[in-house]
Amino acid sequence: MTDIAIQDTYPEDLSQCYGCGRLNELGLQLKTYWRDGETLSHFTPEARHTAIPGYVYGGLIASLFDCHGTATAAAAARHAEGGAPGDAPPRFVTASLQVDFDKPTPLGGPLEIHGRVDELKERRVIVEMTLSAEGVVRARGRVVAARMPASMTPQAAALAGA
Amino acid sequence: MTDIAIQDTYPEDLSQCYGCGRLNELGLQLKTYWRDGETLSHFTPEARHTAIPGYVYGGLIASLFDCHGTATAAAAARHAEGGAPGDAPPRFVTASLQVDFDKPTPLGGPLEIHGRVDELKERRVIVEMTLSAEGVVRARGRVVAARMPASMTPQAAALAGA
Repeated sequence: MTDIAIQDTYPEDLSQCYGCGRLNELGLQLKTYWRDGETLSHFTPEARHTAIPGYVYGGLIASLFDCHGTATAAAAARHAEGGAPGDAPPRFVTASLQVDFDKPTPLGGPLEIHGRVDELKERRVIVEMTLSAEGVVRARGRVVAARMPASMTPQAAALAGA
Repeated sequence: MTDIAIQDTYPEDLSQCYGCGRLNELGLQLKTYWRDGETLSHFTPEARHTAIPGYVYGGLIASLFDCHGTATAAAAARHAEGGAPGDAPPRFVTASLQVDFDKPTPLGGPLEIHGRVDELKERRVIVEMTLSAEGVVRARGRVVAARMPASMTPQAAALAGA
């Protein structure tokens, strides 16, 4: 068990993410922890993250799954390559995201997200997740994470004028 | 062709949504328009909506598909029931959301989202969408929208203490 969030081991140029970048002061700053081969995040939505009054916005839930999923993929790949929890992990991006909203998610308290790896290949990791509120699973998420292509590095983006 | 956004025909208690509620001053306020049986939204992300520098955050794209999808479902159901574009539509919630990120989405300019109905039943509408930047499709989305259960109305949520 380590107390370093997976996102806090990302290099600076991967730490601007709206969902989980520690350097994005206007972002959600999700923190995901590696726990014996599985992953865990907690996040408490704000009042603005409303869908209809009393319930959490589905797009926020999708966002949490997105960042939890790529963090899980990165940590699992690092672990498979013999890296320690504090080491900078390989870079992954989301190739696809599936969210099933099984039950409405009440707004007000903390949400708990669990992730586990369903498939681990060198260039692709599939992560299955659940999101719970008040001890009840409300949504299920699945991320297919792909190794970040070299063309997508910030350096390449800058060259392309993005 | 009408100039009333679908979301601007929602009743007040459905207008708090972080993604598209006209009454959520801290939200994205996505506006979706009905165009001859298809739907169209435009949205320009802010600098904070970064994934890695130069690219749009995937969770934002998922959020845009979520709100565009339920708006399309509501408008299509209203149209099928003989309603006019300015009428309040039936209420839908997202049962599931699938996003495929085909290409990185450059950050800086407007995004264009197109939607069309793939299946229309009384209690369920399936919507297929694309998201483009600079004239190129970057992501594809699919929403299964379900008629909002009576238990999820703001009145029921208030009674349940949510």
